[in-house]
Amino acid sequence: MQIGVIGSRKTKSKAALKAAYEVGRLVAKKRAILVCGGLEGVMEEACRGAKDEGGLTIGILPGSSALSANPFVDVKIVTGMEWARNQIVALSSDGLVMIQGECGTLSEACQAWAYGKPIVAIYTTGGYAKALAGKRIDGKRSDSIVPARNAAEAVEKLFRLIEVRR
Amino acid sequence: MQIGVIGSRKTKSKAALKAAYEVGRLVAKKRAILVCGGLEGVMEEACRGAKDEGGLTIGILPGSSALSANPFVDVKIVTGMEWARNQIVALSSDGLVMIQGECGTLSEACQAWAYGKPIVAIYTTGGYAKALAGKRIDGKRSDSIVPARNAAEAVEKLFRLIEVRR
Amino acid sequence: MQIGVIGSRKTKSKAALKAAYEVGRLVAKKRAILVCGGLEGVMEEACRGAKDEGGLTIGILPGSSALSANPFVDVKIVTGMEWARNQIVALSSDGLVMIQGECGTLSEACQAWAYGKPIVAIYTTGGYAKALAGKRIDGKRSDSIVPARNAAEAVEKLFRLIEVRR
Amino acid sequence: MQIGVIGSRKTKSKAALKAAYEVGRLVAKKRAILVCGGLEGVMEEACRGAKDEGGLTIGILPGSSALSANPFVDVKIVTGMEWARNQIVALSSDGLVMIQGECGTLSEACQAWAYGKPIVAIYTTGGYAKALAGKRIDGKRSDSIVPARNAAEAVEKLFRLIEVRR
Repeated sequence: MQIGVIGSRKTKSKAALKAAYEVGRLVAKKRAILVCGGLEGVMEEACRGAKDEGGLTIGILPGSSALSANPFVDVKIVTGMEWARNQIVALSSDGLVMIQGECGTLSEACQAWAYGKPIVAIYTTGGYAKALAGKRIDGKRSDSIVPARNAAEAVEKLFRLIEVRR
Repeated sequence: MQIGVIGSRKTKSKAALKAAYEVGRLVAKKRAILVCGGLEGVMEEACRGAKDEGGLTIGILPGSSALSANPFVDVKIVTGMEWARNQIVALSSDGLVMIQGECGTLSEACQAWAYGKPIVAIYTTGGYAKALAGKRIDGKRSDSIVPARNAAEAVEKLFRLIEVRR
Repeated sequence: MQIGVIGSRKTKSKAALKAAYEVGRLVAKKRAILVCGGLEGVMEEACRGAKDEGGLTIGILPGSSALSANPFVDVKIVTGMEWARNQIVALSSDGLVMIQGECGTLSEACQAWAYGKPIVAIYTTGGYAKALAGKRIDGKRSDSIVPARNAAEAVEKLFRLIEVRR
Repeated sequence: MQIGVIGSRKTKSKAALKAAYEVGRLVAKKRAILVCGGLEGVMEEACRGAKDEGGLTIGILPGSSALSANPFVDVKIVTGMEWARNQIVALSSDGLVMIQGECGTLSEACQAWAYGKPIVAIYTTGGYAKALAGKRIDGKRSDSIVPARNAAEAVEKLFRLIEVRR
């Protein structure tokens, strides 16, 4: 299974960074592969968490160099496609966890939504995770972005959602 | 100048379709090139409006065939990249008008926002144009998505915004 | 109709530049739209030729800024996708003319070939146009890259090939 | 380290398939990550070889579904970008091995060449690996595509080339 983690790149929120680390850890514990944009902030903490649990981390990078990857990325997917890489994060995930998040995260959530992927948002981290938790992005799907209070609830809910769809 | 028009593909809202037609007409009248996703709904009406005024229309298509373009597209840019083409709509526009809009439109608005493009939303058409008018998508820009009541106000405001930045 | 012109960006070959200018002129004379990568060299001369005949020119640019377009590009398609934009040049063309050409041109020719587009190579300009003229890129198509001695022959042959396929 | 393997998707050549399997095995033995287009033929055999040695395999898929991946792909990167994904294979590899290969392989080799990646071609497998071995794709690089008789020589040479550049 491949789990996407999307969220703020430039954040100092301890709640968001802690949630990201925990999500990474729990995803790895469940033997799933962590997929993310490969950069700093929420992405880096999620990767760090996954590595601390012996997991595998994939960074789908926007630029043309692998050097932009955070130090906890195992596999560097170098796209050279800027934000068009957000589509690849969405398509390559069986489901996604949203943590805080600004403009880029919202764009990824939209693409994941459009492709029918289950999304869980940790609303206690603020940002678009809070704004979208429990809501639909538009009327095309019968479900909503699923709210979760913390990392454990998010990962639990997301895995259940993915299994139901299989 | 190249003006992007983004909005709902599957809409029956007369307000949205009429606004799209008018925006297309006014963009063409100002001798600007109309850029859009090339499909139906808001995109088609905007192209129809532009053609009625003798303008030039560009459709940046998601699939691998030019046949998906609406009949009012002059130049068919066939990307074969699905929604990753949204980045190209955003980057190829000096500024964008947002009309109604659901998930795809929101994703385009996010990308345009991230690339610093001015965006005007016709809030009377509902959808994300209403939800985002007068707001910032995130804190990275000092300005907001500019609200406009109708097509004329939208085009007027957008051209002024683009000129100020030059 | 949309005609792609692919060829060397950094060339000083007078034969190549002259052929590019003539192809641009003839494409415009036939009321077709000229599609290219939007940069210098063969691309620029083709655009210049098309503009001298009152045609319309499209530049599908690799970077994130419209400023890299040559001065004869009317419509600037800004992809932010580096060489992945070569696919868009291939898919957006009903057929392509190849002039001289090195690595990038070869990559575009491969993609156009894979998508089944007719290609004419002006072999007198050297480069991959010479190397590939009269040959197949691989065995998947029954036809070959069609050789042409000069711009007039290239445009004539390409239009005939496109019409046959309609 | 990430090693790309590029080559024919639809091949029945025993030499090519055997070389692919061996390259996969040797790449994994050297603890490098195998990157490929994730489909059948040379890609599948390379993945199978890597898995037999306990390695990690990455498939960068052209379509919008993970189901097109061959059964030996561990990490499915789903791009939804058709052949534009070839750029990602090239950029995500520290160096590439070319085995047989037709149009798609040639396009990948061009992109890898343009991005300055070392390439080794197993010329005994025929196709573009034979046609390009020992040659330059164009004059922009001082080196050439390095010829190798078999998988062992290819992997040995490629690792040395990558190390020299570090």
